[in-house]
Amino acid sequence: MSEILCEIISIGDELLIGQVVNTNSSWMAAELNKAGIRVNKITAIADEGSEIIDAIKQAESQSNVILLTGGLGPTKDDITKNVLADYFNSDIIFHEPTYKHIKSLFSKRNYKVTEVNKHQALLPEKCTPLFNSNGTAPGMWFDIGKTVIISMPGVPFEMRGLMIDEVIPRLSKKYNLPSIYHKTVMTTGIGESMLAEHIDSWASSLPSHIKLAYLPQPGIVRLRLSASGPDENKLKNEIDDYCDKLSVLIPKIIFGYNDITLEEVVGSLLKKDEVTLSTAESCTGGYIAHLITSIAGSSNYFKGSIVSYDNDVKVNQLKVNSGDIEKYGAVSQQVVEQMAIGGKEVLKTDYCLATSGIAGPQGGTEEKPVGTVWIAIATPTGVKSKLFNLGEHRGRNIRRSTLGALEMLRRELAKI
Amino acid sequence: MSEILCEIISIGDELLIGQVVNTNSSWMAAELNKAGIRVNKITAIADEGSEIIDAIKQAESQSNVILLTGGLGPTKDDITKNVLADYFNSDIIFHEPTYKHIKSLFSKRNYKVTEVNKHQALLPEKCTPLFNSNGTAPGMWFDIGKTVIISMPGVPFEMRGLMIDEVIPRLSKKYNLPSIYHKTVMTTGIGESMLAEHIDSWASSLPSHIKLAYLPQPGIVRLRLSASGPDENKLKNEIDDYCDKLSVLIPKIIFGYNDITLEEVVGSLLKKDEVTLSTAESCTGGYIAHLITSIAGSSNYFKGSIVSYDNDVKVNQLKVNSGDIEKYGAVSQQVVEQMAIGGKEVLKTDYCLATSGIAGPQGGTEEKPVGTVWIAIATPTGVKSKLFNLGEHRGRNIRRSTLGALEMLRRELAKI
Repeated sequence: MSEILCEIISIGDELLIGQVVNTNSSWMAAELNKAGIRVNKITAIADEGSEIIDAIKQAESQSNVILLTGGLGPTKDDITKNVLADYFNSDIIFHEPTYKHIKSLFSKRNYKVTEVNKHQALLPEKCTPLFNSNGTAPGMWFDIGKTVIISMPGVPFEMRGLMIDEVIPRLSKKYNLPSIYHKTVMTTGIGESMLAEHIDSWASSLPSHIKLAYLPQPGIVRLRLSASGPDENKLKNEIDDYCDKLSVLIPKIIFGYNDITLEEVVGSLLKKDEVTLSTAESCTGGYIAHLITSIAGSSNYFKGSIVSYDNDVKVNQLKVNSGDIEKYGAVSQQVVEQMAIGGKEVLKTDYCLATSGIAGPQGGTEEKPVGTVWIAIATPTGVKSKLFNLGEHRGRNIRRSTLGALEMLRRELAKI
Repeated sequence: MSEILCEIISIGDELLIGQVVNTNSSWMAAELNKAGIRVNKITAIADEGSEIIDAIKQAESQSNVILLTGGLGPTKDDITKNVLADYFNSDIIFHEPTYKHIKSLFSKRNYKVTEVNKHQALLPEKCTPLFNSNGTAPGMWFDIGKTVIISMPGVPFEMRGLMIDEVIPRLSKKYNLPSIYHKTVMTTGIGESMLAEHIDSWASSLPSHIKLAYLPQPGIVRLRLSASGPDENKLKNEIDDYCDKLSVLIPKIIFGYNDITLEEVVGSLLKKDEVTLSTAESCTGGYIAHLITSIAGSSNYFKGSIVSYDNDVKVNQLKVNSGDIEKYGAVSQQVVEQMAIGGKEVLKTDYCLATSGIAGPQGGTEEKPVGTVWIAIATPTGVKSKLFNLGEHRGRNIRRSTLGALEMLRRELAKI
């Protein structure tokens, strides 16, 4: 059949006063695209009946699938529900399974079900209720021939659950969508344009039914491969083959697949090798330790960090030679290597990452401008270090130094 | 005059595939609201001429001010510019001042001006060019009686510069908008609903031309006061008076005004008192040190941190009594106070913040469930500690523990 077009309509005054960023609609757009549905418009409107009606009418003239979020729940007077009942000229009926679900959710939390909560089980007769496992307000599916109008709550995790469990599978079935397979290749260490040059021949070799998208983030470039066709298994094998070829072409800079983070990857490697890590941070100010410890279970391999912002801390805690700080400066290969060795020794770990740099905006010199960063890694067999030049922005310098350090550790552990 | 309504139209395929979150439009909506212009719709559409025309036509039937972002620049084929020239039936002319600006930007960066760059200086004759100090593509202002259509680049910092320097002042003048004065009160330590109860009588005493909005973030609630009227000075004095009254009502929980962060506030207090800080972090894993060092100039008062994830580090580096860890557990008042005292001593600072808690998802017990966090502060005269119960989510526990620690320091330094 012809292409399925979709419009997303987000309902909520909070979006129009700029209080809330509309992350729901970008998440939904990504999921719909993955499922093979093109989003041709995203609209945000007020909690206002007439505006909701206008927006639906406009969308109906352009799209097959209309997804509404928000405007449900007691504080919004369930405006979306009432507007849709009117629009479809539908009676409102009491939906017993929804009420049972509300009662069971409330009893788990030891809350009492009030009259207001009971209202959530009142639904337009003409809709198919969609089960919301994460909340009290069900989704509503209005099937009108070639078009479908779907309403969901605006609470992000409730909407996401409904999309994954109900909306996407039902849309795939209704429109007989082809199978789509996606795989994201995570890379770090080189920028988007240089990466594109490196993999140009590989990218040109992709068949027309496999699409490649570059998704850059600070310090990381994701490559998303998507293929559609009748046979999902075949697509998966095909994309896996192309990924294997890519990993031969750029073996070092791929750190994982499908949105894994660098801190997760090094965490798994440390766990697998049963080795421990510490950090000795100057310019990153504890951010490496923070990312490492943001992973659940990191206490199995991370012992601690000495954040040595002050040179005295480098000397007293990390056993850096004070004469070398004077001679070479705190931002130097000599000092950062001593920091890594010292951190490894005093924190009694197998590996230690150390950073020393000029994050900015002050502190730069002609010889060592803002963005000059030395990173070292002490390993069971020695110490290695590397110089980076990361630019002028303090926050980005801290983030990029941290990714650079994690990547050095990953390569060391993966022996590449 | 009657209310000015605005529609924001964001142009870009990247928005419709969910690759980019539309932060531009929420930022613009917030700025427009501050200036007294109500946003009644936000739309995202593709880089497609016919869709841009359709969106403008629809917007013209509902709004006076239509703001377009994106679809400019060489990689987008300057689609917005060409569509607008067609729409207004306007010739395209070479705009000499824009070309001069492009040349000067490029010579600063030692780049050569190419033919492609020269194209940026071609503009529809019927527009007023808006000077873009941060980039090469100027804004375009089309004045058509009561309505105005404005096009800006989609690059966030270029768009923001144009909005602040050109668009908002021109809109204020064109529509003779009343003066608007805003002040945001930053609070931490209690949740939105309890805060609302506390300040109920004060909120009810606000005159009708002063609006109050609650803007909650994790661990922080912002209160925004906005007033409009003919005399800006009078509005400012009035709002300042109400803020003074509020600070008498809730003296402890207000940590600042107008989007200042807790780490900035404690940084200023430490600097003012010429005292130094260190941290001894267990469950926060370096996040306090990270927030502190994200502030430029923090090396003046922050000496370093010992992140003691492992109990050995608590004993060896922070001089915590190992018998007490065995007796009371690492998450205990006894241990966290010793961590703070030890950190202060070994890092030679005036103050030290220490945290020890169960961030989760593992490690909880019946007696000490996930979210149990002890925070201590060592001061020049002693040590204080406090127990928190922060819930089940690891990331939010780390964030809330960190804010709790910074707030303890703030109250200590501010002597409240």
